[in-house]
Amino acid sequence: MRIITLLSDFGASSPYPAEMKGVLLSACRARLVDITHDVPSHDVAAGAYLLAAATPAFPVGTIHLAVVDPGVGTPRQALAVGSGGCVFVGPDNGLLMRAARAAGEPRAFAIDPVRFARHPMSATFHGRDLFAPAAAALARGLPLEQIGPPAATPVELPEHPPERVGGTVRGQVIFRDRFGNLITNIPGHWLGGVAGPLTLELPGGRSPARAVRTYAEGTGQEILVVVGSGGTLEIAVNTGSAADTLGIGVGDLLAVLLDARHP
Amino acid sequence: MRIITLLSDFGASSPYPAEMKGVLLSACRARLVDITHDVPSHDVAAGAYLLAAATPAFPVGTIHLAVVDPGVGTPRQALAVGSGGCVFVGPDNGLLMRAARAAGEPRAFAIDPVRFARHPMSATFHGRDLFAPAAAALARGLPLEQIGPPAATPVELPEHPPERVGGTVRGQVIFRDRFGNLITNIPGHWLGGVAGPLTLELPGGRSPARAVRTYAEGTGQEILVVVGSGGTLEIAVNTGSAADTLGIGVGDLLAVLLDARHP
Amino acid sequence: MRIITLLSDFGASSPYPAEMKGVLLSACRARLVDITHDVPSHDVAAGAYLLAAATPAFPVGTIHLAVVDPGVGTPRQALAVGSGGCVFVGPDNGLLMRAARAAGEPRAFAIDPVRFARHPMSATFHGRDLFAPAAAALARGLPLEQIGPPAATPVELPEHPPERVGGTVRGQVIFRDRFGNLITNIPGHWLGGVAGPLTLELPGGRSPARAVRTYAEGTGQEILVVVGSGGTLEIAVNTGSAADTLGIGVGDLLAVLLDARHP
Repeated sequence: MRIITLLSDFGASSPYPAEMKGVLLSACRARLVDITHDVPSHDVAAGAYLLAAATPAFPVGTIHLAVVDPGVGTPRQALAVGSGGCVFVGPDNGLLMRAARAAGEPRAFAIDPVRFARHPMSATFHGRDLFAPAAAALARGLPLEQIGPPAATPVELPEHPPERVGGTVRGQVIFRDRFGNLITNIPGHWLGGVAGPLTLELPGGRSPARAVRTYAEGTGQEILVVVGSGGTLEIAVNTGSAADTLGIGVGDLLAVLLDARHP
Repeated sequence: MRIITLLSDFGASSPYPAEMKGVLLSACRARLVDITHDVPSHDVAAGAYLLAAATPAFPVGTIHLAVVDPGVGTPRQALAVGSGGCVFVGPDNGLLMRAARAAGEPRAFAIDPVRFARHPMSATFHGRDLFAPAAAALARGLPLEQIGPPAATPVELPEHPPERVGGTVRGQVIFRDRFGNLITNIPGHWLGGVAGPLTLELPGGRSPARAVRTYAEGTGQEILVVVGSGGTLEIAVNTGSAADTLGIGVGDLLAVLLDARHP
Repeated sequence: MRIITLLSDFGASSPYPAEMKGVLLSACRARLVDITHDVPSHDVAAGAYLLAAATPAFPVGTIHLAVVDPGVGTPRQALAVGSGGCVFVGPDNGLLMRAARAAGEPRAFAIDPVRFARHPMSATFHGRDLFAPAAAALARGLPLEQIGPPAATPVELPEHPPERVGGTVRGQVIFRDRFGNLITNIPGHWLGGVAGPLTLELPGGRSPARAVRTYAEGTGQEILVVVGSGGTLEIAVNTGSAADTLGIGVGDLLAVLLDARHP
């Protein structure tokens, strides 16, 4: 039995995720697993991050259905992207490609609405009326190539790649989790085993911090730098919120001065 | 394997939905699908809307278990209502009948607590102690007629049916989704293909609006009228919140003046 | 097919619960059921309560995977605790033992990270990298004794046991649910069938209340004492919030004066 994951910005208190599940279960026998339906409304970049974070844990063969789709009903393509033995299904607005690239070599196809849409297809809910039926068809065994023609160049979100210059590594906050941990895009191995005091350069100025292995090593409101579970650097406070303590959030740029004990 | 959906106002952070699932899985092998557990507390009308919105997507044979039940423990009946090949299980307070009527011709039975309740049955949690065991019995194949005697007239919620007079259609906001879209009870086909500028009559006065096919056609805070995914008119703002922009919400009455460009 | 429940403080909008599910489904064919992922951050006691509340409803053979783990990565043990035919998997910080004791006679084992951890094991997410693989191994049939050596004395959370002196019963608020109901640890049968007016002793003074069987018996903002669905006394307001009305919450001590009509 195939696994289909679901991610959206529909909200867990809306009927929309269940409507997608009803369509899926009407058409195939897959196992359904929610990633989340609480992506911030219309925030394609946040959805792309969450999809890329969650999907590597799933087995080969999983179909990932993701819908953060402010352009629903416009001529934007509907994609099914195979990569690393999985398939990513959703709108062509950058939502899928980060996860798809992380999984392998993406091959993108444009879902044929004539063959796969429900009738009548609403203009405002392709998650239910186009993406779910397409995902169900794939779960029933349809070869990816038969979902539609190869897609024109899929939309990719702009990246702000991390940089390393001497003892300074720079990057961006790409997620704030529920604990207030700030996940960056700076590769964890760039820390190079450094442990102990160092300095953060933040939008509001410099801050002392300490590189540690686990949250529990922090004392009080001490700012910690750890290698997070996604393999990138993370700013944290032990049983506290780094986001609240530092007043920074998603999109903010920062640098870690590895050699610099804060004066 | 039968599908059982679950809807309640218990909250996703409470143990109550999981307790119902444990009871279900102790007694049958159904597939469980959450609709939502975040119905506003005690809000039977909101639950009825959400149930009616989500359930049409599920296949014939699905059992819909719904619990928004401020009268739990009182002599109100416990219902199992067959309609359109599905069964709706929950309290007799209007929660079920909107969805059941939309599915077909409802046949309502009063669940026999002597046969189906867990022992001891709590006075405050029939979702776990009566409705879930009854739903599990149905999922195991019990004919609906054997769940108990035919129910006395089930409670129906008051309706405020939409009206159409000349070029004006009137109705009520029946749901505000997470995006701030305002879903009304006005049939979408009453728009009659009208596109372009028109006028809304709202509790606070008139507002210009524009009938479009997709959210993405809106510019800035422009008020849009679209045919929503449930087939009724919906007031929206492209990547914004119509509810916040207009300051209206569930229960408010409105009219769409189809012929009237706002002056 | 074994059932695995999941409970955590990761938040339903984070990718972490889905990552655990991906690991589980990569390694076994269990049915996954969420208890909740909205335990207050780092609140081991709240997690312990919720786990103990939800798990009795599940059938023998269920594996309960619970992660509220501020000490992740420290030398605290990782536990698999068999009790009453179920297994509780999670950190050794008191999270598991309340539920395990309620289920039967706990036998605790220390999960062997060398055999069960994913490689590389992150220092900050043992839910994904250690607890989930161990739970999956158990779901595949591994005898509990082979998960690792018997555990040194598992951590137990401090208890504030309820007391009964004459006509006064004393206890503590251990959970506030979404409705504002205040669940205490006072056994419901201590009410001894008392019905009608009585007096509450609260941190802020005395309050009249009434012992009833169902919420719906209350009128207005009247304070009610009911035997809740977990078998303990609960303070409630009919379709209102006892927590807001009384201004008390989790951890607060209270007494019920069974013989005392409030003057």
